[in-house]
Amino acid sequence: MKHHSLLFFLLIFLTYSPSFSATQSWTTIPRMSPIPEWEASLHDHPVAVDAEEIKSFFFKQTLDHFNYKPESYTTFPQRYLINFKYWGGANSSAPIFAYLGAESPIDNFPNSIGFLTDNAASCNALLVYIEHRYYGKSVPFGSREEALKNASTIGYFNSAQALADYAAVLKHIKNTLHAQNSPVIVIGGSYGGMLASWFRLKYPHLAIGALASSAPILYFDNITPQNGYYSVVTRDYREASETCYKTILQSWSEIHRVASQPDGLVTLSKRFNTCHLLKQPDELINFLRLMYGYGAQYNQPPKYPVNVICGGIDGASLGSDILSRIYAGVVALKGNTTCTVNGPANESETTVGWRWQTCSEMVIPIGIGNDTMFEPNPFNLKRYVEGCKNTFGVSPRPHWITTYYGAHNIKLILGRFASNIIFSNGLKDPYSVGGVLENISDSIVAVHTVNGSHCVDLLRANQSDPEWLVKQRKKEMKIIKRWISQYYAHLHALKDNPNDS
Amino acid sequence: MKHHSLLFFLLIFLTYSPSFSATQSWTTIPRMSPIPEWEASLHDHPVAVDAEEIKSFFFKQTLDHFNYKPESYTTFPQRYLINFKYWGGANSSAPIFAYLGAESPIDNFPNSIGFLTDNAASCNALLVYIEHRYYGKSVPFGSREEALKNASTIGYFNSAQALADYAAVLKHIKNTLHAQNSPVIVIGGSYGGMLASWFRLKYPHLAIGALASSAPILYFDNITPQNGYYSVVTRDYREASETCYKTILQSWSEIHRVASQPDGLVTLSKRFNTCHLLKQPDELINFLRLMYGYGAQYNQPPKYPVNVICGGIDGASLGSDILSRIYAGVVALKGNTTCTVNGPANESETTVGWRWQTCSEMVIPIGIGNDTMFEPNPFNLKRYVEGCKNTFGVSPRPHWITTYYGAHNIKLILGRFASNIIFSNGLKDPYSVGGVLENISDSIVAVHTVNGSHCVDLLRANQSDPEWLVKQRKKEMKIIKRWISQYYAHLHALKDNPNDS
Repeated sequence: MKHHSLLFFLLIFLTYSPSFSATQSWTTIPRMSPIPEWEASLHDHPVAVDAEEIKSFFFKQTLDHFNYKPESYTTFPQRYLINFKYWGGANSSAPIFAYLGAESPIDNFPNSIGFLTDNAASCNALLVYIEHRYYGKSVPFGSREEALKNASTIGYFNSAQALADYAAVLKHIKNTLHAQNSPVIVIGGSYGGMLASWFRLKYPHLAIGALASSAPILYFDNITPQNGYYSVVTRDYREASETCYKTILQSWSEIHRVASQPDGLVTLSKRFNTCHLLKQPDELINFLRLMYGYGAQYNQPPKYPVNVICGGIDGASLGSDILSRIYAGVVALKGNTTCTVNGPANESETTVGWRWQTCSEMVIPIGIGNDTMFEPNPFNLKRYVEGCKNTFGVSPRPHWITTYYGAHNIKLILGRFASNIIFSNGLKDPYSVGGVLENISDSIVAVHTVNGSHCVDLLRANQSDPEWLVKQRKKEMKIIKRWISQYYAHLHALKDNPNDS
Repeated sequence: MKHHSLLFFLLIFLTYSPSFSATQSWTTIPRMSPIPEWEASLHDHPVAVDAEEIKSFFFKQTLDHFNYKPESYTTFPQRYLINFKYWGGANSSAPIFAYLGAESPIDNFPNSIGFLTDNAASCNALLVYIEHRYYGKSVPFGSREEALKNASTIGYFNSAQALADYAAVLKHIKNTLHAQNSPVIVIGGSYGGMLASWFRLKYPHLAIGALASSAPILYFDNITPQNGYYSVVTRDYREASETCYKTILQSWSEIHRVASQPDGLVTLSKRFNTCHLLKQPDELINFLRLMYGYGAQYNQPPKYPVNVICGGIDGASLGSDILSRIYAGVVALKGNTTCTVNGPANESETTVGWRWQTCSEMVIPIGIGNDTMFEPNPFNLKRYVEGCKNTFGVSPRPHWITTYYGAHNIKLILGRFASNIIFSNGLKDPYSVGGVLENISDSIVAVHTVNGSHCVDLLRANQSDPEWLVKQRKKEMKIIKRWISQYYAHLHALKDNPNDS
C-alpha cells in the first residue's frame, strides 16, 4: 500500500477543488477518491524507509491559539514523526527539515516525500513530519466524528490555527532536543506548500527558509484568472496530441446528444462501464473532467498519464466513434477491470476535510472559460457561497486568505520584505498558473520546469528521472544549503560580536 | 479635558503592569488611575485639532478571525477616525498614516498624537486612528458589561485578533477610497508600538513600514532581565539626585517601622493624607512605587517629574524626617489639595482592559531585584499565573507572544528578514530596557535618545522642546519619507516593466 501514497499524500488538494468549483453546486460534486486508481501503476517505487527509522510522537496541542475562552484551552494530541537517522545533533546545530502536513494523514510521508530522505545525509538533517489538525491521528474532540460534527466543532479547522500548531510543535522539538540553534527549513507541497511559504512569512523566528512546491498562493480572489486551471489542462492535452484534444473537445456535445435519446443514459452507462446507472450526463462529464485534470496535474515520469490517455483515444481502432475513443482513453489509464464513475460511498478523510477547508477559507475560484476543451462553466462566487452555507451552516470567507497572508502585488510587497522562500512549479501542472513563477528578490525565488507536474520535485529520486527533474532538485538543494550556510555565518558573527549584526 | 489625554492615551500600558508584577498578588494590586493627577499641569498644550477635521466611522468587524464557529461570525462596530485635511488623494497615491489604538478609547488621539498632525502636511498624508477592540466604542456583545462578563466573552480580546481587525479596517479604507496604491505607515506607542511593529511583520502587504515608539517587545519570557524596569527607575532618580535616591531607598523600612508601632497605620495615613485609612503599609508602598515609576517613565519636558519629586524630597525643610521628605515629594508632584492612595472605585476601562490583557497574553515579567531603591520583589510566574486564574478563570499563556511574534535572537532572525521598522526609545523610560536599542538592519533601525521618556516622540511638537527631541522626530520622519520614496520608485518600476522586479 505504501507506494500508493505518493500522490495522495502530496496534493490531493486539487482533486477536490477544481471539480467542485467547476460544477458550482453541491448537488453535483464529484467524489474524490483517495488515490486515483492509475497511480499505483505509475509509482511502484520500492519502500525506501525502514519503519524502525521513524519515531512517532504526540504533542498536547492547544485547540484555539487565538482565543482565551475556556474551551479554547482544550487540547488534542497532534502527531509528528521524526527520523533521527541522519541528524548531526544539537551540538553541531545541524539543521531540521520539517515537512508540514496538509490535507491527509502523515503515515506515509517519510516514505513518499523522498526529497527529505534523499537529501538528509548531505545536510546531517533531522527529518520531522507534522500532521495537520483534523487529519489522521491529530483530531480534536476525541474522534473524527465529533470533530466534524458541526460548525461549532469544525470551526477550529483552518490554516492560521494549523500554522500556530506547527510553531508550537517546532518550538517544542527544538526545546526538547536543545536544538535552539538548529536552523529549520519547512517544506510542503500544494496546500502544504502554501503553508510552508506562509509559515516562513508569519514565523520567521521558527524557520529560516521554506520550500513551497506547487503552491498556488496566487489562486485567490481575482489575482489568477478563473479559467487558468482548465486552460493549462487543455494545453497539456493539445500539446500531447491535436487529435486527442479535438476528440475530447467534441465529446461533450456527443455525450449530451446520446443522453437525450431514448434510454440514452442506459446507453452511456453501458458504453462507459459505469458502476451504477447514470442519473444524469453530468455524472459522466464530471468523472471525465476530473480524470483529465488529474492526468494533467500528475503528468509525471515515468508514465505521463496525459500521453497514456491520449494514446488510448488516438489509438482506438479505425472508425471508432467519439465515445468509443474517449472510453479507450479511460481504459488506457485505468484498465477495464473496474467500473467507472463511482458512487458517493467511502469518502476519504481528505475528501471530507478538504471540502470543509475549501468551503471556509481556501476558496480557490476555478472556473471554465470558452478557451478550453471543456464545456464552459464560469465560477460563480455567490452560488459557491450558497452551496457551502447550505452544507455547513456557515459562510466561506473568500477574501480572508489575501487579507491574512497577502497575495496581490506580491512583487511589490515581498520585493523588500522577507527572504528565503523557494516557489517551485512544473508548468504542465494546471495549478502552476496560481504559483509564483518569477523571482521576487535574491532570496525569494521561483524555480520552475517546463515539463514538471504537481510537486514532482518532492518525490523520491529515481534512476529513470529525466535530466530536468534531477537538475531542479539539485538547484533547490543548492539554494537551501546556501541559506543554511548564511545562517551559520550570521549566527557565528553574532556570537563572536554580539553587539554587531 | 483634551489636553489631559496625552499620556493617558499613549501608554497607560505600563501603569498597570509593573505594579501588578511587582506586587505579585491580586490581593494587593494597586489600582491604575486613568490619568495621573500631575499630568494636567505637565501638558497644557492647547487643543490643536478642530473637531470638524475629524470624521468618525464604524466598521462592521468580525468577532473571531481565526475560527469558523457560528458565533465567530458575530460582528461588532469598530470605530475609526479619519482626518482628510492633509491628504493628497488616491490619484497621487498619497500616503496613509495609521495610528493603531491600544488600551484606551481613541477619542483624543487626533489631538494628543501630535506626531501625525505635525507631519501630515509635508507628506500629504491621510490620518487614520483605529480603536482597539474592547475599548471605547469598539466593544462586542453590545456593551462593555457583556463584553467583559466572563472568560467566554472576553476571550476574543487579544493582540492577534486586534491586528486582524486593523488589517480588515485598513483594507476597507483603501478599497473605499480607491487608495490601493497609497502606502500605509502604521504608528503606535508602548503596547500600541508593539502592535505597530508586529503589524509590519505579520501584514507587510498592508503597511510598508512601522514606527514603534517605546515598544518593549523584548520584555517577554526571559529575554529582558526581570529587574530591568525598576533598575532604570532607580537610575533616573539617582542621576537626578543622590540624596533623593537615598531618602527613597531608606523610606521603605521607615514605613514598615512606623506601621508596626501602635496606631502606626493611623499615623501613616495622616502623614500621607490618604483618602482612606490604610489597612496595610503595602497600600502606601504600592502607591509610592507607582508614582516613582510613572515619574521616571514620563520624565519629559517641560516639567520632568523626577526632578519635581526629587525637588520636593530634597527641598523639605531642614531636619525633616524621612517620611516628611517623601510626602514633600508627593506634594511637589500632585499638590496637597487632594488626598493620596485612592480606593478601588471607578477603575478606568484601561485599568480593567489591561488587567485582562496582562493576565492572558501580555505577560510582562517585571520584578524587583536587589539593585534598586525599592524593596526586592522578584517576579514569580507561578504565583502570577495563579492570581490570573483566580481572577479570570483561565490561565495566562506566558510564552505565546514569543511563539507568535518571536523576540529571542531578534538580530539573528530579523537581520535577514523584514524591513522598514523604527524602534524609538528614550533611555530614561524604564520600559526602554525591553525595547530594541540597536539597529537590526539597514531598514530595521533603533532611534533612541539618552534623555527621552516613554513615547515622547509621538507628542505634539512644542516650542519649548529640547533640541534632542526635535532632532529625534526629524530623524524618524526622514526615515519614513525615505520608505515612501522607495515604495513609489518600486511601484513605478513595476508598472513600467511589470515583468521585472
